[in-house]
Amino acid sequence: MNGKNIIASEYVDANEKSLHAINPATGVAIDGDFFKANEKLVNDALTSATEAFQLYRSVNKDLKAAFLNTIADEIAAITDELVKRASAESGLPMARLQGEVGRTTGQLRLFANLIAEGSWVDATIETAQPERQPLPKPDIRRMMIPIGPVVVFGASNFPLAFSVAGGDTASALASGCPVVVKAHPAHYGTSALVAAAILNAVEKTKMPKGVFSMLYDDGYEIGAALVKHPQTKAVTFTGSFKGGMALVKLADEREQPIPVFAEMGSINPIVFLPQALQHQAAELAKKYAASITLGAGQFCTNPGLMMAIESAELTTFKKTLSEAIAAIPSATMLTGGIAHNYNKLAAEVINDDKATILGISTLKDKDLQNQSQALVAEISAADFIAHPKFREEIFGPYSLLVVAKNLTELEAVISSLDGQLTATLMAGADELKDYKSLVNKLTDKTGRLILNGVPTGVEVCAAMQHGGPFPATNDSRFTSVGSAAIYRFVRPLAYQDWQQELLPDELKDGNPLNIYRTVNLKLTKVDE
Amino acid sequence: MNGKNIIASEYVDANEKSLHAINPATGVAIDGDFFKANEKLVNDALTSATEAFQLYRSVNKDLKAAFLNTIADEIAAITDELVKRASAESGLPMARLQGEVGRTTGQLRLFANLIAEGSWVDATIETAQPERQPLPKPDIRRMMIPIGPVVVFGASNFPLAFSVAGGDTASALASGCPVVVKAHPAHYGTSALVAAAILNAVEKTKMPKGVFSMLYDDGYEIGAALVKHPQTKAVTFTGSFKGGMALVKLADEREQPIPVFAEMGSINPIVFLPQALQHQAAELAKKYAASITLGAGQFCTNPGLMMAIESAELTTFKKTLSEAIAAIPSATMLTGGIAHNYNKLAAEVINDDKATILGISTLKDKDLQNQSQALVAEISAADFIAHPKFREEIFGPYSLLVVAKNLTELEAVISSLDGQLTATLMAGADELKDYKSLVNKLTDKTGRLILNGVPTGVEVCAAMQHGGPFPATNDSRFTSVGSAAIYRFVRPLAYQDWQQELLPDELKDGNPLNIYRTVNLKLTKVDE
Repeated sequence: MNGKNIIASEYVDANEKSLHAINPATGVAIDGDFFKANEKLVNDALTSATEAFQLYRSVNKDLKAAFLNTIADEIAAITDELVKRASAESGLPMARLQGEVGRTTGQLRLFANLIAEGSWVDATIETAQPERQPLPKPDIRRMMIPIGPVVVFGASNFPLAFSVAGGDTASALASGCPVVVKAHPAHYGTSALVAAAILNAVEKTKMPKGVFSMLYDDGYEIGAALVKHPQTKAVTFTGSFKGGMALVKLADEREQPIPVFAEMGSINPIVFLPQALQHQAAELAKKYAASITLGAGQFCTNPGLMMAIESAELTTFKKTLSEAIAAIPSATMLTGGIAHNYNKLAAEVINDDKATILGISTLKDKDLQNQSQALVAEISAADFIAHPKFREEIFGPYSLLVVAKNLTELEAVISSLDGQLTATLMAGADELKDYKSLVNKLTDKTGRLILNGVPTGVEVCAAMQHGGPFPATNDSRFTSVGSAAIYRFVRPLAYQDWQQELLPDELKDGNPLNIYRTVNLKLTKVDE
Repeated sequence: MNGKNIIASEYVDANEKSLHAINPATGVAIDGDFFKANEKLVNDALTSATEAFQLYRSVNKDLKAAFLNTIADEIAAITDELVKRASAESGLPMARLQGEVGRTTGQLRLFANLIAEGSWVDATIETAQPERQPLPKPDIRRMMIPIGPVVVFGASNFPLAFSVAGGDTASALASGCPVVVKAHPAHYGTSALVAAAILNAVEKTKMPKGVFSMLYDDGYEIGAALVKHPQTKAVTFTGSFKGGMALVKLADEREQPIPVFAEMGSINPIVFLPQALQHQAAELAKKYAASITLGAGQFCTNPGLMMAIESAELTTFKKTLSEAIAAIPSATMLTGGIAHNYNKLAAEVINDDKATILGISTLKDKDLQNQSQALVAEISAADFIAHPKFREEIFGPYSLLVVAKNLTELEAVISSLDGQLTATLMAGADELKDYKSLVNKLTDKTGRLILNGVPTGVEVCAAMQHGGPFPATNDSRFTSVGSAAIYRFVRPLAYQDWQQELLPDELKDGNPLNIYRTVNLKLTKVDE
């Protein structure tokens, strides 16, 4: 495995310190040397990305699609090695990572299909009316064009699907933007393996080499330099509120502002309505015990908050949940830092008078490091509303059940919440229509509303919205999952009275690419 | 005319100082008392807007369209009074303002049609696949929803089309967002007349009253308080770089960041290619003398920069331009401040060794105040590139001709430019294809490329893009002119496994609204 930094698809030497990956379950370094980047490499990466942008943006859409599909092929070809390495670096089970390889290659192919089809550019054409009074109408044609080099921060909790060739990279490359990845320090080796797959694809499909660079760092210096570089045109990040807002602040301070897409987590409230509990209190408790602890709770859609009105059925729910949580084995967290933080915050809840422990997993494996025990606590609606600290995310296998005396209190709990990625309602067959005010309140807080499901497991598709009101993300107008994620990296350009032969194919008369276009207010594939 | 502040469609008293409109041509106050708002009114406006939002967002799309059309009707009904008042307050000619009434009502009707048709919400549906392996696929349906109260700053240079019921207000109301207008101090009376028309429309169409408020101020205090208010969800502004960036900074400092859409002007470069000058040097000079001085040059699309390679034909162009500019009558500028600033900056150019005066209008009317004389200057490409001050906008009837020795120097001039709203190429019939590198460089600098036209006169249509790379606007991904302006005020919401009867009509099975939707990746009006 080659652990050197990558500039314009080539490995380069850096004379800074060498870095090593750590197995979080054992605390022991894993084989492989990686190298801290420096300011010169940051500049080289953005300079080569800017140069490559002028070529790459003009690459035919089918060739760009072939590039994305080839990255997917190259990743699929090293699945076994990748899953093994990612598991050692992240503590995540092999089966989960096997699935994540599938999601990662699936995302690349989804974007390949999107751009090969071609209609995503939102071509809008209004033809000239030279005779119009009082003034003639010009011919105006608009489409989306890429904005330039995108800096992608690898995420700790998805070493594949939100990392080197994850959804951010796939959507940026699909849009026509070169990518500079800042590898996540929790999985250097996984990053190096995926980067090598991208390098193979760049070579096989003859892409401009500056379309991909990747830098290593064990601190914040390289990331900050990437965000501040004048040639960076957008930044993507998935991680903590603190980390995301630090990048937003750096971007705000630039001479030329750029968009930062920071997905900063969320507590993903679940509302259990009375009928839902009446019919299936025990089943729901089991279902949620599994969702709360899936992947050691290290999902941005982890259900960190549950709420219900007190009732006999809620008592059954609590009892079953308590037993189910107690039976969950402890699990290795992604990094020492994440484990330390989880255990600290969980202890604070345990020691807080206002919260009662509902369930805690006790099967701690003493031989392994960085373990997390699942924890579910209970609090009254009044205490929850009065103490904002309970609304903060605790990243890990944790959830808080808020018990309200009545519907008014339940709605007050919802009103007290910050913005969320998801909000879920568990309801009986004919119950939801009686809770319109509650649903409206939830709608204002979230980017995705779920009925009778669990928020974990984010379907990668055209209709997905993964991005909610602040602080779940810093810009709720965009999604980081699904094909609409491509719109983060484009801007509209209008051509007025432009020469036919020099227009992009997407905008030419006769629609040579056979894409959907809005022509004189009519959505069509056929010119009239 | 009622000059009181308006909260939730009702006139309210304010005990702050009274304000008066000034006729810029005479310096004399015009009749009518207006009243400086205060912090309490800011809070009242946003509180009532937030309350009204919950009702207004759910108002049927045809009723919302009727509301917009009624505002247009009410404005059209007072055209004569409005044009007279706006002319007295702005110094703009009646004919221009007559046209601007048409544009304003046209914009309102454009958005009414857009929302009545309904497809703009970008409904995207993926139906469930319960049998899918390894995991079932849920039913996911996404559409755009409004974000909440929008603060609209009236612009000085479009007292109607970018003011109280201008494009920002029309697109925000169309999206489902209530509006709070900060009236521009240069045209209190025009603002009051248009606001009264909106109040009539609110009453006639029975809209929630909090959907519209308007506040007066002669300074920055009220504007700043509106941007900082926690219930404000977006801000629109058209004006100076300094003014726009001050609002962006205030928004960045909020606890909860919100989008600011600031259109901050541009020098709108024009490139004259050799053949264009060979065939029509004199005609082009006349055409551009008219474009530079239209409306005293007070357009964000005013051609403030022209460039060409030196040639005999360029000499002809310069001679004709010089004569044409000299023959332009001086004109009243919008405000004393704008006139002062223009005359100061024009004098600086005149006194600068590096610039030569090409043409200056000499027909100054000594009886009128706040007059501007048109000015066109010339500079070498080398000096232009070396001195950034020449790249700054001089708001008024001014343009600078940059003369390059050759194509390389011409491209270097383009590379030195900041982001622009528009960029124009004047080219011979078969010439453009030889300048691909130059066109690529221009493309990166602008939101709209124009061939053989003038940038002034922005067509209000579905294909328009009015928004370019920084500093022309702070966010080039959006437009402030044309129907796509509605997308500034919405965010996507996804429903997962939601109950049919409780879905918005836009997302229901059977497509009851008969809109275009993307259903299982197919764009269609028919479910399958």
